[in-house]
Amino acid sequence: MLKDYQLLRIPGPTPIPPSVQLAMTKPIIGHRDQETKDLLKRIKPSLKKIFGTKEEVVILAGSGTAGMEAAVVNTVSPGDEVLVVVTGSFGDRFAKICEAYNLHVHKLEYDWGKALNPEEIKTYLTKHPMIKAVFATHCETSTSVLNPIHKLSASIKEVSDALIIVDGVSSVGGVEMKMDEWQIDVCITGSQKALMLPPGLAFVATSQRAWTIIEKNNQSSHFYLDLRKYQNNIQQDSTPFTPALSLLFGLEQSLQLMEEEGLHNIIKRHKTMKNMTRNAFKALGIPLLTNDKDASPTVTAVKPTDFDPDRLRKILKEKFGLVLAGGQNHLKRKIFRFGHMGYCTPADVLQTISCIELGLANIGKLYSLGIGVNAAQVTYLQEEFHEI
Amino acid sequence: MLKDYQLLRIPGPTPIPPSVQLAMTKPIIGHRDQETKDLLKRIKPSLKKIFGTKEEVVILAGSGTAGMEAAVVNTVSPGDEVLVVVTGSFGDRFAKICEAYNLHVHKLEYDWGKALNPEEIKTYLTKHPMIKAVFATHCETSTSVLNPIHKLSASIKEVSDALIIVDGVSSVGGVEMKMDEWQIDVCITGSQKALMLPPGLAFVATSQRAWTIIEKNNQSSHFYLDLRKYQNNIQQDSTPFTPALSLLFGLEQSLQLMEEEGLHNIIKRHKTMKNMTRNAFKALGIPLLTNDKDASPTVTAVKPTDFDPDRLRKILKEKFGLVLAGGQNHLKRKIFRFGHMGYCTPADVLQTISCIELGLANIGKLYSLGIGVNAAQVTYLQEEFHEI
Repeated sequence: MLKDYQLLRIPGPTPIPPSVQLAMTKPIIGHRDQETKDLLKRIKPSLKKIFGTKEEVVILAGSGTAGMEAAVVNTVSPGDEVLVVVTGSFGDRFAKICEAYNLHVHKLEYDWGKALNPEEIKTYLTKHPMIKAVFATHCETSTSVLNPIHKLSASIKEVSDALIIVDGVSSVGGVEMKMDEWQIDVCITGSQKALMLPPGLAFVATSQRAWTIIEKNNQSSHFYLDLRKYQNNIQQDSTPFTPALSLLFGLEQSLQLMEEEGLHNIIKRHKTMKNMTRNAFKALGIPLLTNDKDASPTVTAVKPTDFDPDRLRKILKEKFGLVLAGGQNHLKRKIFRFGHMGYCTPADVLQTISCIELGLANIGKLYSLGIGVNAAQVTYLQEEFHEI
Repeated sequence: MLKDYQLLRIPGPTPIPPSVQLAMTKPIIGHRDQETKDLLKRIKPSLKKIFGTKEEVVILAGSGTAGMEAAVVNTVSPGDEVLVVVTGSFGDRFAKICEAYNLHVHKLEYDWGKALNPEEIKTYLTKHPMIKAVFATHCETSTSVLNPIHKLSASIKEVSDALIIVDGVSSVGGVEMKMDEWQIDVCITGSQKALMLPPGLAFVATSQRAWTIIEKNNQSSHFYLDLRKYQNNIQQDSTPFTPALSLLFGLEQSLQLMEEEGLHNIIKRHKTMKNMTRNAFKALGIPLLTNDKDASPTVTAVKPTDFDPDRLRKILKEKFGLVLAGGQNHLKRKIFRFGHMGYCTPADVLQTISCIELGLANIGKLYSLGIGVNAAQVTYLQEEFHEI
């Protein structure tokens, strides 16, 4: 096997475009100098576009979880009632953060692989009018479900004034996010997914309505994650604490690449990759964890019935340097996940499927090669060339 | 289309492994300091192994052509009779260099796509006993022919003492080269092919027999390309002129990767990629320029009969960022060439074939998708998993 060769196809961290990698090697600049202000100012407009908001998007040096925790600690206070919608391990993480801050946590749990049900949540909120915030996951990375956040928001609005707080870590930048139009109050993402950067940055966008609440919130103990500090600073093109400068250099370049491709095309590319992948596994007769309606454009979870997915993953890594993700919690050794987001193209989907077919043949689970690739190719032709 | 994305599948320059790219960013060192001597010393053993020689391999800052010219100008003198075996445009380049130095050039030309015939060359040499050197191409990049250099050498030895000078630019490092065993006198390669480096270095390995001739050669005008200077210096782990240090940093790392993979495995990988590629095009019913016996493991030339290869190449670049090479000279718009050498794996072959199939479908030349991929997959299974 060729050394120093890898096909990283996990649902984040994702591969980095060469020009982004190069941008990150620029010399460090003074974080309080005009150059940093100029950089932050240049980054703003593209970032807002990706979140679908006119409000400021603050940038924290931290992982996606830091962003999630900031969303919790700034919006509610100990003892407050909150509803956490759990559709997988990242919904679960929101619940754990809320519990760590001694909130009164209501949990609505869904089978892993299923999407949340907006009507059910509406009913629940009607019965619990004291709930001040609803926490939900847009793309649940652990199950490859894309929850219908715009419908959830519409349903909540009918019965409640609760803040709507969304984990968009593995969706924003690869999937449509119209924060203002959908009336989302807080939306979080991380750098290492559709934004084509290494891990290390969390992004938090906040509605005007949420700001009025955040500004008055003095209950929780927090310092680094105090969004008011970030908000006050970003308005002057600055940050309250030392920014992760190299990642910001990379961010400017990745946003530039995204501008050049166009958000509409990016979203279409991810949708095409989802459909290619799903149709391939259907053709191969290997069950998917999620149904078509709920499936995420950024990651696909596959749930084989007659082989150990970790055995397949091991072979693929050994023979092709192809890295897929396994399952989390009770889905461990039950599923494998193929991340197709960010710096990833239909050509990479074809490559991944063709290698998976060979891996399946190696473990004695496939006898007719090329069937999955064919299904993915046909899908591509239909969606991109409008043929067949 | 995703920006800053490219699948470079031309027969050189080839993609660079990330660790090689990184190595090339090391700070420049003093080219006359001990660090440079140590570096050159560390590089030597692996480089000799790749050429299959115990002799020194000298490194020039220059392209492969500089290496070819060095091989000409150091071994023969104006007026000398030489035989140039031309099987494509790189054989032709050898002839042009010889002509530029006012040699008496005999040319034996073969149809582009065919290999040289050792018996014919033997007969020719018998008729022209004054020929002092035979110039031949190992892998003729322009046609994807791998000439049978070991057989050529054996045939020449039967009738002539002419030096045997081989252009190994697109073969050495991806194809077996046993310079000492095969009694090759001069073998040249470049950095940008199977050695997984950017262009900029030429390598010249020389037999003991050739050295006795080179040492006495005072006829040709040359300074930079004087191999005696390089030879004298390399014995002290040095270079006569400023070495291309960054490329040497990269070379050390690429040689390290090659040591880790093992030369035997590298040669096998290239052979597998050749067979996957050829079987794919056979399954697709698109003619190959070269027959199985003469085909190179590093590049495949495809000669479609009913479509313009440049139209296919254009679509592939636009839609997938996939870069294939066109034809040269009279093969322009007649063939396309897929380079599968260096930092390239069977997974990349599968990706390339699957994209080519879609490109063919787009120009209306393929109706059954996945057939080529299937043939490549079956070939992989047979060669790597020993299955089916």
